[in-house]
Amino acid sequence: MSTYHPLSEQEAIRIAQDIEGFFPPGASLACREIGDGNLNLVFHITDGVSGKSLIMKQALPYAKVVGESWPLTLDRARIESEKLLIEGKLVPGLVPAVYQYNPELALTVMEDLSDHVIMRQGLMNGTRYPLFADHISTFMARTLFFTSDLGMNQQEKKLQVKAFINPELCKITEDLIFDDPYTDSPNNSFNPAIRDAAEALWTDGELHLEVAILRDKFLTNAQALLHGDLHTGSIFATPASTKVIDPEFAFYGPMGFDVGAVFANLLLNFAGQEHWSGDANARAEFRQYLLDTIVDTWHQFDEKFRALWNEHGVDRLASAAAGYQEFYMRRLLQDTIGFAGCKIVRRIVGLSHVADIDRIPDDASRERAQRLALAIGTSLIKRSRTAVSIQELIDAAKSAISQ
Amino acid sequence: MSTYHPLSEQEAIRIAQDIEGFFPPGASLACREIGDGNLNLVFHITDGVSGKSLIMKQALPYAKVVGESWPLTLDRARIESEKLLIEGKLVPGLVPAVYQYNPELALTVMEDLSDHVIMRQGLMNGTRYPLFADHISTFMARTLFFTSDLGMNQQEKKLQVKAFINPELCKITEDLIFDDPYTDSPNNSFNPAIRDAAEALWTDGELHLEVAILRDKFLTNAQALLHGDLHTGSIFATPASTKVIDPEFAFYGPMGFDVGAVFANLLLNFAGQEHWSGDANARAEFRQYLLDTIVDTWHQFDEKFRALWNEHGVDRLASAAAGYQEFYMRRLLQDTIGFAGCKIVRRIVGLSHVADIDRIPDDASRERAQRLALAIGTSLIKRSRTAVSIQELIDAAKSAISQ
Repeated sequence: MSTYHPLSEQEAIRIAQDIEGFFPPGASLACREIGDGNLNLVFHITDGVSGKSLIMKQALPYAKVVGESWPLTLDRARIESEKLLIEGKLVPGLVPAVYQYNPELALTVMEDLSDHVIMRQGLMNGTRYPLFADHISTFMARTLFFTSDLGMNQQEKKLQVKAFINPELCKITEDLIFDDPYTDSPNNSFNPAIRDAAEALWTDGELHLEVAILRDKFLTNAQALLHGDLHTGSIFATPASTKVIDPEFAFYGPMGFDVGAVFANLLLNFAGQEHWSGDANARAEFRQYLLDTIVDTWHQFDEKFRALWNEHGVDRLASAAAGYQEFYMRRLLQDTIGFAGCKIVRRIVGLSHVADIDRIPDDASRERAQRLALAIGTSLIKRSRTAVSIQELIDAAKSAISQ
Repeated sequence: MSTYHPLSEQEAIRIAQDIEGFFPPGASLACREIGDGNLNLVFHITDGVSGKSLIMKQALPYAKVVGESWPLTLDRARIESEKLLIEGKLVPGLVPAVYQYNPELALTVMEDLSDHVIMRQGLMNGTRYPLFADHISTFMARTLFFTSDLGMNQQEKKLQVKAFINPELCKITEDLIFDDPYTDSPNNSFNPAIRDAAEALWTDGELHLEVAILRDKFLTNAQALLHGDLHTGSIFATPASTKVIDPEFAFYGPMGFDVGAVFANLLLNFAGQEHWSGDANARAEFRQYLLDTIVDTWHQFDEKFRALWNEHGVDRLASAAAGYQEFYMRRLLQDTIGFAGCKIVRRIVGLSHVADIDRIPDDASRERAQRLALAIGTSLIKRSRTAVSIQELIDAAKSAISQ
């Protein structure tokens, strides 16, 4: 059973029974495959008697969305598991605990979070998360700072860069986020009703220049160990708890890519409120809540990151050079805004969409949400070298809905 | 003999005799250790009868300059050998041929270039190298372009980043170039007569900000596979031939660090002409030759790099986005100017100096050369985010000698 093959539910149960000290001896376990992703099997294993449960995530050697035609290395299971362990040390409580990692089976056994809801779904249900800004800003400030040249030994960081070289999953991002949406690619997928807006992306030279610059940062800027796919579908939440999951896209990249992913997905929900809020008042209120959450998250992130730097900075010159912290945080804000824009645009015209928009049943509302998202996304991308305040992101969102 | 130990000359001869087909069977070989570097043994092995010869370079597990107290991994011999092989494919004729690499002994056997002169010495002798700009611009354009995300498969590039992670040699650069000169470090070493100028570096906030930004690029910007130590002491030259040697500092970094290293060392010689040229006329002429060489090298580099991009570019968006090439080349120019400045400053006040300046016998001339170099270096560093033309580097040099 230790040679790689996709596990059956029965095999998953047997592995769970062998984890020492977790389930009571002789427990009768139930197993359900609950994966809705494209790249993995996810087994939920429960013991009805003790009430204990766990999750097993097994990497598949191909992307399910395109059948077996898109092969993917199983090394991403190692990357996910190692990244989860690093996060577990830096932000315990904000990620699932890892119980076991089996490299032969590309299998990670971890904490069951099924009392949480995927945050994307929660936001579609109108749930508010009053602690989210605090939690996610802590997650980002600590994971990004302590894996960067500002916060860890700079020679060990280089070895960590090496351990998290992740060519195949980076290629998915490079293609689907930083290339396809800006040309007539066969990978693209969009509502025929917005073809004019999609085509406008293909001919917008100003936009192409900014996306090329952001793409270059993604390709070359080994600033910190990123989650790499930090959207609201990678966050399990309750109003009281936030757990970040699924770091298989982890690699050393620009910090703004993680922060931008969070903001992009809040803004996609913002655009989707065309439908999800019942009436105009509720819609305006939930939208304001989303924008407030972005501003709050940025300010808390900025404050926590600077505090870590001031207290734990390891780079003498970076700490001594007057103005450097200001320069660094402004560039990080600009990267955040630019990457947020790219992550919005790809969810409207690229291969992979989000439920916040696609599940809007009414054609007119869905189309208006898509156009709104594209207006916000392109506007953010064009501010990625000039923005000086998070308020500019808010302005872009407000200006789009007022059109 | 295959377990690592520093070789004796007799052992080096035995290894040379075993290289199949190189020396005639039974040849009586002579061997001389000619290393003048700090990190390696270099054996020159000759057969007086056939006239054939070769070089053996063996990495030492410590830096000689500080005795055995500064341990260094022997992995740098692998890095040097693999980088030489990549260069041999991209710019044959501009690097020594590699005959053999022995990983156990950290030993690279390569072409003997002793008909060439170390360019630093050549420039001190007043030699002009009319083909140098052509050769070195070809070397840099091809080695940098074809190892970057512009010119090679972007997933293979990531594996190459991994293979050239080089923490220990990068640390030498990070400390000696991007930290020590800007603080009262025990590693610094400078002429007591210029203490005022050294101290000015320690308190210049504007300078510290720019150096911190350049240091960050060195730490995080995996743009291309650099030589990493491309000064005129790493270049063997004759008026007709140029051979770049010693790439043990190779790693993925910002392209401008290599280009800047070449310009910095031409400018250090420029400053040293206080002494090396016999009279004021000869001095002015040789200085003009050095500045012309810099301008010529930049223009040829810029032209060749763009031509490679236009013909062999692999990144769709980087090629399609109007204005991106301009943006890229301007940033590369700015990096070049900034890194050139850093590499000049460290040779005046840091641990490791250059003969162009230190061997000036006359105290007053040496001091004037040192002050000149510092004036040029700091001026370049301060232009590293604003320069738009190589002419600004020339202006900085001319303005320094006219003071």
